Amino acid sequence: MSDPLDFVVSQGDRFRSELYDFLRIPSISAKSEHDRDTRTAAEWLSARLAAAGLTSEVIQTPGHPIVLAEWRGAKGAPTVLVYGHYDVQPPEPLDEWHSPPFEPTVRDGRLYGRGTADDKGQLYMHVKALEAHLATRGSLPINVVVLAEGEEEVGSPNLVPFVAANHQRLACDVVVISDTGMFAEGLPSLGFSLRGLAYFELHVQGAKGDLHSGEYGGAVANPGNTLARIIASLHAPDGRVAIAGFYDDVREWDKGTRAQINGLPHDDNAYRADLGVPALTGEAGYGTLERTWIRPTCDVNGILCGYTGQGAKTVLPNRAMAKVSFRLVADQTPAKVRKLLEAHVAKVTPPGVTVSIAELHGGRPWRAKVEGPAFDAASEALEASFGKKPVLMGGGGSIPVVVDFEEQLGATALLVGFSLPGCNLHAPNEWLSLAYFDKGIETLTRLYTGLGKKLPR
Amino acid sequence: MSDPLDFVVSQGDRFRSELYDFLRIPSISAKSEHDRDTRTAAEWLSARLAAAGLTSEVIQTPGHPIVLAEWRGAKGAPTVLVYGHYDVQPPEPLDEWHSPPFEPTVRDGRLYGRGTADDKGQLYMHVKALEAHLATRGSLPINVVVLAEGEEEVGSPNLVPFVAANHQRLACDVVVISDTGMFAEGLPSLGFSLRGLAYFELHVQGAKGDLHSGEYGGAVANPGNTLARIIASLHAPDGRVAIAGFYDDVREWDKGTRAQINGLPHDDNAYRADLGVPALTGEAGYGTLERTWIRPTCDVNGILCGYTGQGAKTVLPNRAMAKVSFRLVADQTPAKVRKLLEAHVAKVTPPGVTVSIAELHGGRPWRAKVEGPAFDAASEALEASFGKKPVLMGGGGSIPVVVDFEEQLGATALLVGFSLPGCNLHAPNEWLSLAYFDKGIETLTRLYTGLGKKLPR
Repeated sequence: MSDPLDFVVSQGDRFRSELYDFLRIPSISAKSEHDRDTRTAAEWLSARLAAAGLTSEVIQTPGHPIVLAEWRGAKGAPTVLVYGHYDVQPPEPLDEWHSPPFEPTVRDGRLYGRGTADDKGQLYMHVKALEAHLATRGSLPINVVVLAEGEEEVGSPNLVPFVAANHQRLACDVVVISDTGMFAEGLPSLGFSLRGLAYFELHVQGAKGDLHSGEYGGAVANPGNTLARIIASLHAPDGRVAIAGFYDDVREWDKGTRAQINGLPHDDNAYRADLGVPALTGEAGYGTLERTWIRPTCDVNGILCGYTGQGAKTVLPNRAMAKVSFRLVADQTPAKVRKLLEAHVAKVTPPGVTVSIAELHGGRPWRAKVEGPAFDAASEALEASFGKKPVLMGGGGSIPVVVDFEEQLGATALLVGFSLPGCNLHAPNEWLSLAYFDKGIETLTRLYTGLGKKLPR
Repeated sequence: MSDPLDFVVSQGDRFRSELYDFLRIPSISAKSEHDRDTRTAAEWLSARLAAAGLTSEVIQTPGHPIVLAEWRGAKGAPTVLVYGHYDVQPPEPLDEWHSPPFEPTVRDGRLYGRGTADDKGQLYMHVKALEAHLATRGSLPINVVVLAEGEEEVGSPNLVPFVAANHQRLACDVVVISDTGMFAEGLPSLGFSLRGLAYFELHVQGAKGDLHSGEYGGAVANPGNTLARIIASLHAPDGRVAIAGFYDDVREWDKGTRAQINGLPHDDNAYRADLGVPALTGEAGYGTLERTWIRPTCDVNGILCGYTGQGAKTVLPNRAMAKVSFRLVADQTPAKVRKLLEAHVAKVTPPGVTVSIAELHGGRPWRAKVEGPAFDAASEALEASFGKKPVLMGGGGSIPVVVDFEEQLGATALLVGFSLPGCNLHAPNEWLSLAYFDKGIETLTRLYTGLGKKLPR
């Protein structure tokens, strides 16, 4: 057998069986009692990469290890870095799983289990696609570096420092990431954007202690009312963020891309009914997909103030806290948004309280070029495997490391994912279509071939 | 000895010693493990009233008992009802007490202990003033009913039903309550108002479950932002409550009373510094004492929404809750305010969420006539004992039962209190001036005489 695609078909059962083994390791990065399991998953993955024909090692970090595997046999050819993660979210609440989270179970063509979609199942597609080439041809059309971390679900604290310290070893032309999904079943998709994040905690401080609302009510500013006033001031009636300068760095998308987004098979009514909300709302002038993909937002994530137990406590609270975060789009940055927010809050805060703002988390937005040889190669591979040209798909969430890869390594990122809507990411009963596990390996096998042909030498 | 006032002086040591016994009983009405102590306090009080010469009984209720004592020997004379409570607040936090809460301790002329000011110490002044008359004259200048409850600190659930069911037995001309304080040391005070209360819980409901702020942010209304918008809409920039019709029932005070309030020895700067706030704020056009006594308010008492733990959780919460209460002034009512609030919230709530409002607690405001024979008698008794005419003093808090007494019994209420500012009501190290315990008995002894002379027969 000399065709990698034939190999993929012939080895399907073994590939699946290996994935089940991978999924059975409860590599929950957030829980220290699973530290050993997380390391076991790293070692298991590294061994599979070595068995596929790559040189692989498990590299210790201050946290969970990084698996780094390389194949550098394509002299003069470009280099592709595959990024993924072998850690998973905690499975709780356990009683909502219909089969055990770490016992992969097939029902109706779906493989259920924690990590099936996010991201073990998709990362393993790459391992098998690489094996398909090396087993049939003895070589790969490109040089490859596989970088798999074990801390994606806890904010990747050690990944960016590792990338920064290993520019030479990680040098590449393209970064391929399979940690997203498809817009719909049968509709292959290519990611063209991810939103960034700027996450803050606001603290409003009033008196030195809680007061009696009868004794003092009316004479001092109430931090709860004041916080509400500040939060309310963040939006204009048309749904836009009302912070001066907030939209200055927002790069608008061209009409063509917007038309493509609005041409996707999306049904507002079904979406609304599925969420159980009485109406959809948002920034005027944009549709639901645009609002979640290409427009920035401001959302309260939490508020805590005063007495929140049962019944009526007549306290005039002396402080109030809110977690408020912004989803950003290119070319907004968390640093700039922080400055604008600080200026805004200083302007709208009434006398009688002091307000402090802490930045908890930040990540820059990513916007793809949606053209060029890497993009073309992915598009063709997806079309060949699924029989349809891929649609462009935005990401409402954030994968901050994508921007770091592009900036630090000077590479182009490709987001090629195979999970389906409703696959219960981070929730009970996470699943991956088994057919799409096979199709993903097929697509990625084609993608490596295509990248070898299209990328400039 | 035939003068009740001489008797008060001669028996001072015994009166104090008896009070210490009363204070040693931990009659914490909120804690069921103290149910027996609470009953013991009722029985102890009833025995002291009987010893003073009244007919007394302990009446069972669905909760803690009511002590009812009567002396009806003044044929044709008016009747005075003395109201007070023998239950106390929980003493926690215990480690902040400088002496044990239930071991009365004298330091620098202050008697420290739970219940010294609120209300055992003040209630017991009445018992001793009654005794002074009966012991020296064998009679009282008026008929007396003493009504002491054991549930004031838990909202008096059984008092109003008891009053409603016993109109005849409780029939009276004047209700005297000593459960408030004086404006300042050396400045005897007569209460002229209490604010009412309308306490609500607002619930904002969005999607059927929490959402990911990346995936859905921008496309659905955020209940946290919406709640903030609703709360912010409750105030106008001038500090007034912005609910249509809210001030319609507010009866303004005359210039004379306002001038008297503003002539009281109050220092905004010291008040501000003591609270530790950067500035005092409130309704434009009114001073601090007016804002806390004669103007209505709207205060957040608590807010809870989404994730409030450490760090950044990117949740788009599906609900938010706020406790919001209004202090009312005559002639506002909780029922009317509820209707106005409901109409306001319906008007300002944007699409995408549903809001529900629950009323947790309500109490009507009270406003005294500040004239008439009972008021004159109290004024003269205070002047005779303290050497100064009493000042009028408002109450920012609420004692809803005052309005019930006036309405159900057709009586005039007198608020004559002897605790001092900073006496740590409901807090650690509650205290009562020992000299004012004596002076309070003296004043009340004079008050009974005065009421006998001034009230119409």
